[in-house]
Amino acid sequence: MTIAAFRADLGDIPVEDHPRIVQQRSRDHYWYSPVLKAKLDHVTAEVVVSPRTQEEVKTVLAAAYRHKVAVTPRGAGTGNYGQALPLAGGAMLNLMNLDRVIDIKPDRVRAEAGIVLEKLDQQTRPAVGGELRFHPSTYRMASLGGFIAGGSGGVGSIRWGGLRNLGSILSVKIITCEESPREMELTGEDVLKVAHAYGTNGVIVEAEMPLAPACDWVDIMVGFDDFLAACRFSEAITAQDSLLLKEVAPCAAPIGQDYFNRHKPYIRDGQSVVLIMAAPVAVEPVLIHLAYHGGEVLYRSDKASEEELRRLPPIYELAWNHTTLRALKVDPSITYLQTRYPTLKHVEKIVSILGDELPMHIEMTRQDGAVTFAGLPLVRYTSEARLEEIIAIHEDNGCAVFNPHRYTLEEGGMKRTDAAQLAFKRQADPAGMLNPGKMIAWDDPGFDLNSGRAWLFQGLAATAGAA
Amino acid sequence: MTIAAFRADLGDIPVEDHPRIVQQRSRDHYWYSPVLKAKLDHVTAEVVVSPRTQEEVKTVLAAAYRHKVAVTPRGAGTGNYGQALPLAGGAMLNLMNLDRVIDIKPDRVRAEAGIVLEKLDQQTRPAVGGELRFHPSTYRMASLGGFIAGGSGGVGSIRWGGLRNLGSILSVKIITCEESPREMELTGEDVLKVAHAYGTNGVIVEAEMPLAPACDWVDIMVGFDDFLAACRFSEAITAQDSLLLKEVAPCAAPIGQDYFNRHKPYIRDGQSVVLIMAAPVAVEPVLIHLAYHGGEVLYRSDKASEEELRRLPPIYELAWNHTTLRALKVDPSITYLQTRYPTLKHVEKIVSILGDELPMHIEMTRQDGAVTFAGLPLVRYTSEARLEEIIAIHEDNGCAVFNPHRYTLEEGGMKRTDAAQLAFKRQADPAGMLNPGKMIAWDDPGFDLNSGRAWLFQGLAATAGAA
Ligand SMILES: Cc1cc2nc3c(=O)[nH]c(=O)nc-3n(C[C@H](O)[C@H](O)[C@H](O)COP(=O)(O)OP(=O)(O)OC[C@H]3O[C@@H](n4cnc5c(N)ncnc54)[C@H](O)[C@@H]3O)c2cc1C
Ligand SMILES: Cc1cc2nc3c(=O)[nH]c(=O)nc-3n(C[C@H](O)[C@H](O)[C@H](O)COP(=O)(O)OP(=O)(O)OC[C@H]3O[C@@H](n4cnc5c(N)ncnc54)[C@H](O)[C@@H]3O)c2cc1C
Repeated sequence: MTIAAFRADLGDIPVEDHPRIVQQRSRDHYWYSPVLKAKLDHVTAEVVVSPRTQEEVKTVLAAAYRHKVAVTPRGAGTGNYGQALPLAGGAMLNLMNLDRVIDIKPDRVRAEAGIVLEKLDQQTRPAVGGELRFHPSTYRMASLGGFIAGGSGGVGSIRWGGLRNLGSILSVKIITCEESPREMELTGEDVLKVAHAYGTNGVIVEAEMPLAPACDWVDIMVGFDDFLAACRFSEAITAQDSLLLKEVAPCAAPIGQDYFNRHKPYIRDGQSVVLIMAAPVAVEPVLIHLAYHGGEVLYRSDKASEEELRRLPPIYELAWNHTTLRALKVDPSITYLQTRYPTLKHVEKIVSILGDELPMHIEMTRQDGAVTFAGLPLVRYTSEARLEEIIAIHEDNGCAVFNPHRYTLEEGGMKRTDAAQLAFKRQADPAGMLNPGKMIAWDDPGFDLNSGRAWLFQGLAATAGAA
Repeated sequence: MTIAAFRADLGDIPVEDHPRIVQQRSRDHYWYSPVLKAKLDHVTAEVVVSPRTQEEVKTVLAAAYRHKVAVTPRGAGTGNYGQALPLAGGAMLNLMNLDRVIDIKPDRVRAEAGIVLEKLDQQTRPAVGGELRFHPSTYRMASLGGFIAGGSGGVGSIRWGGLRNLGSILSVKIITCEESPREMELTGEDVLKVAHAYGTNGVIVEAEMPLAPACDWVDIMVGFDDFLAACRFSEAITAQDSLLLKEVAPCAAPIGQDYFNRHKPYIRDGQSVVLIMAAPVAVEPVLIHLAYHGGEVLYRSDKASEEELRRLPPIYELAWNHTTLRALKVDPSITYLQTRYPTLKHVEKIVSILGDELPMHIEMTRQDGAVTFAGLPLVRYTSEARLEEIIAIHEDNGCAVFNPHRYTLEEGGMKRTDAAQLAFKRQADPAGMLNPGKMIAWDDPGFDLNSGRAWLFQGLAATAGAA
């Protein structure tokens, strides 16, 4: 048996094969999508392998190559496109034990891939007064490697852009899946080959990330009677380059009242809210803008009681896909979309067409220098057909959709696979053992790399801004 | 004699009355403009008063009010719109002796108005690892109070916007010119009343400024055969929010060859250059973008020899109005304009119309969240009439001009005087003794406050983004 032979080559590297535990570790948050849930519920690996060192990762990958066992890298399993689901069975490669911080400099940090993002900041803050520029809202669970391989941006992207931007990841060390696995250090634009590639072209064991100055961010929640007024305010403060902000997210009523359980008492019926993280120096100017826009302060962490600070989650855990998570916990029929609204007019149009079928949630971001409405609207799901209609309504109105109901790189639409990446996978994973089934262009050589759609990770030439 | 009576009330506060020295101290860099030079050359004060403490500033202002002596505040006199010229004679108020740093916090600094900006950073860097977010290219001479009262932005505005943005100045302490001069602490949007008001409505004695993380900025000069390619590259890197940049300025040939004396040997004939200051983490990505855009590295301070570092001025002293200064030193017939090009197409259009009559110099900035081409083109001056034509060509092509050939606030077009500011001047300077002649709306109650032109300092409601 392949798996038995594979295991035999692992020495004393910990292996788990209890079916229930293995199944649990074969999942991520794919169940946010009813579409993925129906398609992927049965998927499971046969074992979970948990190397403790980079040398052990090499041993695992050599054995996988030798015995043709599929290997799916896994961090905390918080991805929500099913990107960590082992479509071909085989082994889950649990990287959470590789969690050393290697080097901290005033403007950058180098660490192993399994470190939890919050733990990383807990070391860089006292050491050099720095913190990650941005993190997913799963900050307290997600791993560095999982974020790079599976994420795109998050809390802080309002100022620093996303992982797709050159300069957001300084360096990545991967191990290849070959007869004799090699270490490769990727820097410069080569980093973009493995960013958001779902671990299909190398196992990330270390990364070097730039740091931003650490800050005692103030959580602020403000309320508006009118959602579009909330959006106008959000756009205005985001556009003020003088305001050091880490998060601005307008959420239409009734998201706050119905799904933000702990913050509910602060929110009046019918109020739309904006979730804000501001540097102390930015708080006063933000409140001045708020007054001009007719909004009202509902909560400020810098004026909160000890008891409130203990009871309430940080505001970023209401934002990004935590908005979806909180809604799902209350109403399991809810799902979501990922969209991009070029202007406020586009938001207004979509809201006017879809109303409460699509409770609107927007994350203000900077994309390629422009203030952008990145949408993560909730969807009151009825059928896959209607979901497709909602997507079509967006596209017909000039709003891009990055479909979170697809588990392949290309169909998800975040990352464009290009010739350079395919060539790189041939080097790093010549037998196609790494997370098989996630890169269509690998399995289907006839796949059109140049389909005309919108991609968040544009591929190398476009990302570097070439004409 | 008024001045004699005024002097008699000053006690032992130092007063200078040697005509040549007084005349020297009655000037700023107004002579950048042949128009202002013709109009203002004869202007001089009668004395220069140099208080050493804030109490002494009060004594001076009380005496000025009592004896109706005009008072023109002065920092280093590096302003270049003639805004520090004493149109009504009287006294220059030299504030350079008020140069104490009062309080340094991790994210902000409070200091007296006369401190030179570079000296301020020299204290905040070792203390908290912070530096001013942006500074004029006259960093090594200009005072904090003069920058606030007379400047707009500069090196660092590419990331942090300008002085006009709420949040760029946290607090300002002024002294009024009344019978009993009062101290007033202005915070929030009240700060905007005295920002870029030429000292017409209060003498700034202290200010609190937000800090950005200090950084060992790398000076880079790159070259392009084609100026528009240089602009495309400049726009592309500015738009990458992931790249920590402090300065990006494309300068068309032959600016580099003809006017950058010390850097000349690095520049090939016909090359346009881009002046860049990048954080160490941003250098590699910038060079990758450069390669995509077909540019070439001419100079990098992080690879320079000791001798080069000693010999060459910092790159920011080629930028902003230092470009103009360097050109003027070589060719006294040159002057300049301040413009705003909404897009690269606008730059292209103006360059195609005016060619070498207007050697193009652009400062990449962020204005209200958008990457913006702020122009400081040189002008090969022939006559005032032709200068007006060049301005008209800009305006006819949708490019705003902030006319640096005007010494009043309103005609310069940077700052819109509004009712709130006029009301404030009535409180802070009821007799109109402070820098008389610079605010038209004060002298001419019939002045139209709402003329439809473009203003950099929009006035309060618009700045706060109200609809
Ligand atoms: C509530 C919620 C909120 C979220 N918010 C955000 C957000 O704000 N921004 C955002 O970008 N994402 C967000 N996500 C998605 C996800 O949490 C993040 O992308 C997270 O960083 C993934 O990290 P992880 O360790 O859980 O990765 P996993 O889910 O374990 O893995 C993600 C992908 O990376 C691969 N992988 C993992 N580790 C490695 C490695 N070392 N080498 C190679 N491949 C590897 C996996 O195979 C998988 O394809 C959210 C998800 C949830 C459930
Ligand atoms: C080569 C060159 C480059 C420049 N580059 C830039 C640039 O990049 N960005 C930019 O914004 N400007 C620039 N300038 C303009 C000028 O240097 C700056 O605005 C500078 O900050 C002015 O400071 P100062 O101390 O010299 O002020 P001054 O010239 O002495 O005064 C400027 C104005 O402020 C008033 N004033 C001075 N001190 C006070 C006070 N304490 N209270 C009240 N009013 C006061 C004066 O009356 C005057 O109206 C440049 C000028 C030159 C010559």
